[in-house]
Amino acid sequence: MQEALPRFGYRLIAQSGAARSGEIATPRGIIRTPAFMPVGTAATVKALYPEQVRAAGADIVLANTYHLMLRPGAERVARLGGLHGFMRWDGPILTDSGGFQVMSLSKIRKVTEEGVRFQSHIDGSRHMLTPERAVEIQCLLGSDIQMQLDECIELPAERARAEEAMELSLRWAERARTAFARQAKPGQALFAIVQGGTDAELRRRSAEALVAMDFPGYAVGGLAVGEGQELMLATLDGVVPILPAERPRYLMGVGTPEDLIEAVRRGIDMFDCVLPTRNGRHGLAYTWSGRVNLRNARHADDPAPLDLESDCPAARDYSRAYLHHLMRSGEYLGAMLLSWANTAFYQQFMAAMRSAIAENRFAAWAEETKRRLAPTDAWDV
Amino acid sequence: MQEALPRFGYRLIAQSGAARSGEIATPRGIIRTPAFMPVGTAATVKALYPEQVRAAGADIVLANTYHLMLRPGAERVARLGGLHGFMRWDGPILTDSGGFQVMSLSKIRKVTEEGVRFQSHIDGSRHMLTPERAVEIQCLLGSDIQMQLDECIELPAERARAEEAMELSLRWAERARTAFARQAKPGQALFAIVQGGTDAELRRRSAEALVAMDFPGYAVGGLAVGEGQELMLATLDGVVPILPAERPRYLMGVGTPEDLIEAVRRGIDMFDCVLPTRNGRHGLAYTWSGRVNLRNARHADDPAPLDLESDCPAARDYSRAYLHHLMRSGEYLGAMLLSWANTAFYQQFMAAMRSAIAENRFAAWAEETKRRLAPTDAWDV
Repeated sequence: MQEALPRFGYRLIAQSGAARSGEIATPRGIIRTPAFMPVGTAATVKALYPEQVRAAGADIVLANTYHLMLRPGAERVARLGGLHGFMRWDGPILTDSGGFQVMSLSKIRKVTEEGVRFQSHIDGSRHMLTPERAVEIQCLLGSDIQMQLDECIELPAERARAEEAMELSLRWAERARTAFARQAKPGQALFAIVQGGTDAELRRRSAEALVAMDFPGYAVGGLAVGEGQELMLATLDGVVPILPAERPRYLMGVGTPEDLIEAVRRGIDMFDCVLPTRNGRHGLAYTWSGRVNLRNARHADDPAPLDLESDCPAARDYSRAYLHHLMRSGEYLGAMLLSWANTAFYQQFMAAMRSAIAENRFAAWAEETKRRLAPTDAWDV
Repeated sequence: MQEALPRFGYRLIAQSGAARSGEIATPRGIIRTPAFMPVGTAATVKALYPEQVRAAGADIVLANTYHLMLRPGAERVARLGGLHGFMRWDGPILTDSGGFQVMSLSKIRKVTEEGVRFQSHIDGSRHMLTPERAVEIQCLLGSDIQMQLDECIELPAERARAEEAMELSLRWAERARTAFARQAKPGQALFAIVQGGTDAELRRRSAEALVAMDFPGYAVGGLAVGEGQELMLATLDGVVPILPAERPRYLMGVGTPEDLIEAVRRGIDMFDCVLPTRNGRHGLAYTWSGRVNLRNARHADDPAPLDLESDCPAARDYSRAYLHHLMRSGEYLGAMLLSWANTAFYQQFMAAMRSAIAENRFAAWAEETKRRLAPTDAWDV
């Protein structure tokens, strides 16, 4: 009897309006959706041990192709046995294609039909990223979910510019798919990325063309780059209904808890964002009573913990006075504790959303939760 | 029947030559000696969770009066219930008197008979530290072992200057003792500090005068400030025989593993030093095969762990290639893992010394260990 090949797949479990919960099966384990992926840019979720990320409830982490291709290098990671062993994360890993970081971080870049030529922001070395090379790098890293190379543009953008980038991204999607088919292992998946700026017609054309190519998952890219929540949600309103119900949907680079609620309400399944860890390093904490700025002097004498509703030791076992002291003193432990607490909050938040969907009370949960998180919607600086 | 008051005491367990192992009893637990105290300057052992410090084998940590009096402030720590709860360390804590840091860190300082007036290196605020205030601060913090205020001078120093500072420190010891007797809780202890630079006769006079005052423990201060190991050990050769055998002996601010061996050989029981954590943050690791600079390019492709002889997860579970990558990328996790591995190494090192003493084979152990640690005695940069 032949052993079944490991497979990638999505299973819908429950719906509450357009919000849905489900499971993505990968050879390295199940991803419960809606899922938030902690960002491990350089093969580490900043200031956290991998055991803490797992214990916080994360099923999957994201790593950045752009950073890893430059340092330590994809071929090196492959020689060392792949990204999972390297960073000690045995669950699924999603890698982006490098496209977004090339646009936002690299020094000089030139986009052609072939790909994007750029200089490293670390040492100025020259590199070429093509749809084929992006797939090759992600295969070398050994990620479970890969992203096609796309061209990301800044918003706002002229329609002609957005159209050009969207069309190029479609051609790159086809090339990525061909390259992926040649070299991927069973169970690995390549996601396509819907582009088109904030133009509804471009987004529709992008989504329809990609759906016709039949990818195992679809991302909505090029959002959360300053266009504002309203335009972002309007774009989702146009795109999501086009995407097939039997495939996971991933909104890239999003977002705040409020963003997550509104995107899940529209049928998004997966998210990634640096907010919980980056804000944690700056003393900003997410709690079930709203956002808290631990650097604020009003915490200096407060013996209360950060968040008694959290099950994270960082939020329960240390006083706000101590967290305040650590942040004011620039101590590592401050960044460690708040990155941990925020990562745990985001996972608890996703778990609460999944429960609300399973019990078909998502709209009520969303309303109540937005009210609870509102009081300190602006950081209490 | 009346409950016995908690008591502070030292018990000699074994000797091997002049090297000795023992136990210091405090109301908050036993300190196995020779003991190395991880340094928690600002109420945190940098880049470590308190649970990791404990699990590494530390019985006691040190915190710095100078830093804590400036931020968050001793009165604030007292209002919050004391330093132990504040930093979540329920074992014994030793606090220094602030004297050394006033000399090395503060901006402007003036030493008078009364005490030392100085400006904070943080915000320029003006403060006065007297022998009485140093005791008061340490009582507010609630430390288990306090240090008297002393005057630390730079080495090399004129004999007259060293004598003046030593005599002043003796008068301050007497004042500290009086202040301590008024306000300390049962079981707390105040240690005296032997001064006198590298002058054998001054050191002898200092030690004899302090022994006559009968303190529960004695420190040797003003060393490891650049005078070299030879002069430091010569000073110990003169001082330690004067100190009473039934009291613990503490060599302040020392040192490398080789320093610890030589000081224990001469009868020292306690140490503190920032080396394991500070070097860890800079990518320098202590292992049972010598010192290792993880930033060195030769580790970039090395799948081996840092130290298979260590029982610390940081030294066993991550590859040198990954540690190298983390340090080169300036990632928090690099500093976290190497501070952890080094803290664990120092504790394992002390445990090995205690075993060697218990088995009366300290000299042989010392010789073998110095040979094992020698190959990379200079960091392999």
